[in-house]
Amino acid sequence: MPDEFSIIARLRRVIPSRAGVHAGADVPLGIGDDAAVVHCAAGNEWVLSTDAFVEGSHFLARLHPPDAVGYKALARAASDLAAMGAAPRHFLLTLALPGRRTGAWLDAFARGMAVAARRFQMRLIGGDVSRHTHVVAALTVIGETRTGRALTRSGARPGDALYVSGRLGAAQAGLDLMLRKGAAAVARRQRLSYSLNRHLYPEPRLALGAWLASEQLASAAMDLSDGLSTDLPRLCRASGAGAVLHTAAIPSVLDAPSSQRLPAHLKDAAVFRRALDGGEDYELLFTVPARLSARIPPSFRGVPLTRIGEITAKRNITLLDASGNDRPLRTRGYDHFAAS
Amino acid sequence: MPDEFSIIARLRRVIPSRAGVHAGADVPLGIGDDAAVVHCAAGNEWVLSTDAFVEGSHFLARLHPPDAVGYKALARAASDLAAMGAAPRHFLLTLALPGRRTGAWLDAFARGMAVAARRFQMRLIGGDVSRHTHVVAALTVIGETRTGRALTRSGARPGDALYVSGRLGAAQAGLDLMLRKGAAAVARRQRLSYSLNRHLYPEPRLALGAWLASEQLASAAMDLSDGLSTDLPRLCRASGAGAVLHTAAIPSVLDAPSSQRLPAHLKDAAVFRRALDGGEDYELLFTVPARLSARIPPSFRGVPLTRIGEITAKRNITLLDASGNDRPLRTRGYDHFAAS
Repeated sequence: MPDEFSIIARLRRVIPSRAGVHAGADVPLGIGDDAAVVHCAAGNEWVLSTDAFVEGSHFLARLHPPDAVGYKALARAASDLAAMGAAPRHFLLTLALPGRRTGAWLDAFARGMAVAARRFQMRLIGGDVSRHTHVVAALTVIGETRTGRALTRSGARPGDALYVSGRLGAAQAGLDLMLRKGAAAVARRQRLSYSLNRHLYPEPRLALGAWLASEQLASAAMDLSDGLSTDLPRLCRASGAGAVLHTAAIPSVLDAPSSQRLPAHLKDAAVFRRALDGGEDYELLFTVPARLSARIPPSFRGVPLTRIGEITAKRNITLLDASGNDRPLRTRGYDHFAAS
Repeated sequence: MPDEFSIIARLRRVIPSRAGVHAGADVPLGIGDDAAVVHCAAGNEWVLSTDAFVEGSHFLARLHPPDAVGYKALARAASDLAAMGAAPRHFLLTLALPGRRTGAWLDAFARGMAVAARRFQMRLIGGDVSRHTHVVAALTVIGETRTGRALTRSGARPGDALYVSGRLGAAQAGLDLMLRKGAAAVARRQRLSYSLNRHLYPEPRLALGAWLASEQLASAAMDLSDGLSTDLPRLCRASGAGAVLHTAAIPSVLDAPSSQRLPAHLKDAAVFRRALDGGEDYELLFTVPARLSARIPPSFRGVPLTRIGEITAKRNITLLDASGNDRPLRTRGYDHFAAS
């Protein structure tokens, strides 16, 4: 059984990190002291968010590969920085885990987190390891923006166009697939479907968020963690507004094998529900003032940007189909405590 | 069963927090968005630390009163800011908990955390709540220092005087007492002994740390979380130095009833071992260059400051008793994974 310090040393070796004194101009003091010291460039502000990734609640150790657990724990936290239009910089990791997870499992977890840290250009600056019956990883992520440029949820105004990045429902389709096929499907990594990839290795839209913020194109933004039908009402509530959602415009994902055995009309319904209610896509939902909407391209660095509706003064959310029929949106997204 | 958002709303109501847009000049955006935005005053740096407080590992739900769990979770994280000489400012809370703890238990937890936040002048700026089999609270604390003034572990030099604040072994004595007497003793709150108070409601030495940093008196500092015999070697290792510890000078706590039934010579030994090896005192261990040691008063705001030894060039740690006998220090402090 390795001790606490050899665990920390192993994490530090694998995960890109800043350690010791003069770890960098922006990190005068990295890992290894009572706390880290970070320097903020003049004219910038820090953006901070914290997020827990909990065994049994957010992932299942018997199903989810440990490298995906490490990757996703950081990716979902970094997605909050994307939603703010912040450039990711540093993170702190609190890891509670059982003794039986301190060997190969921990090594794979660290490798996955290292992949995420490199991809997002983030560095570990501090952490804490303790023993627990299950794995609980709590991440605090720190990003940087120009002062006053952070994208909030509260800036949407009536008449603004509503956009979403990527295609929705993929992560939910991937989870459904994995729950049905089990861990064996996951082990055959080279054959991971698009959906399974989106569930296990989500891509926070950091470049998109940063571009929207620096160009001052978005009036509001958030990331889709709990599903469009849950998250859009949050954006509307924060902005004191409502929305009309064009159901035919919502970009959905069709490559979930489960839906292919269904009759066409049910398949459409299942795919649509997943796009509307499925969580963990980590796409960006954002609003753009009408006068700026011509500046939003059909895709940004290969990620589709789709106009799916408009913000309204009336505070409810209406689904409008291609035939012009409307109905109110019902929230069906995820709530940790609602299920019991 | 309350939902996730009503839990967050309850925590926000009870714990001093910053919410929404323009939450303050230093917090342009508080709780309620994807992330918080904080502003750092020119000439200052941020000090960040993260710390988990885990049921079954750091506390026992059947023994520890929930308000003490909330208080201590923040106090032990804030102690890392004290060790850096930083002024505490903000914190983020990640809380995983079972459904059965979302009622009265959570309210008491929040009240305890609110007491700590007010005492340390900290504000909650973000968080995350999820469901889990046990309570796991992960705190990220953010403090501020003048650029370059943070106290590190690595600055101790041969010849520096070694000091400790307060009296050592109290928290361990309190824990021993509680484990022996059970929760009933804790419930009789008005009769909490000094030791039990130190275990349940530790006092991070924030004012002392800030004073040592602002007066530039300390060459190195850390907080005693795992016990002097474990933490002093860490300070020495970080500084590339050793130490001589005068055992007779170590300020210990005598008010643990368990020790009063022992013969005097055993009592002395038990009290001494607790002062040397007992964890969670959250006192400050700091070093002072010889030329500045005359400026260290015998106490600071009622907290004794005791010179307990010197830093040496030789890299080992020697215990020196009043008769001039010396022996090497053996580390017996706490390690989460060593016990198994």
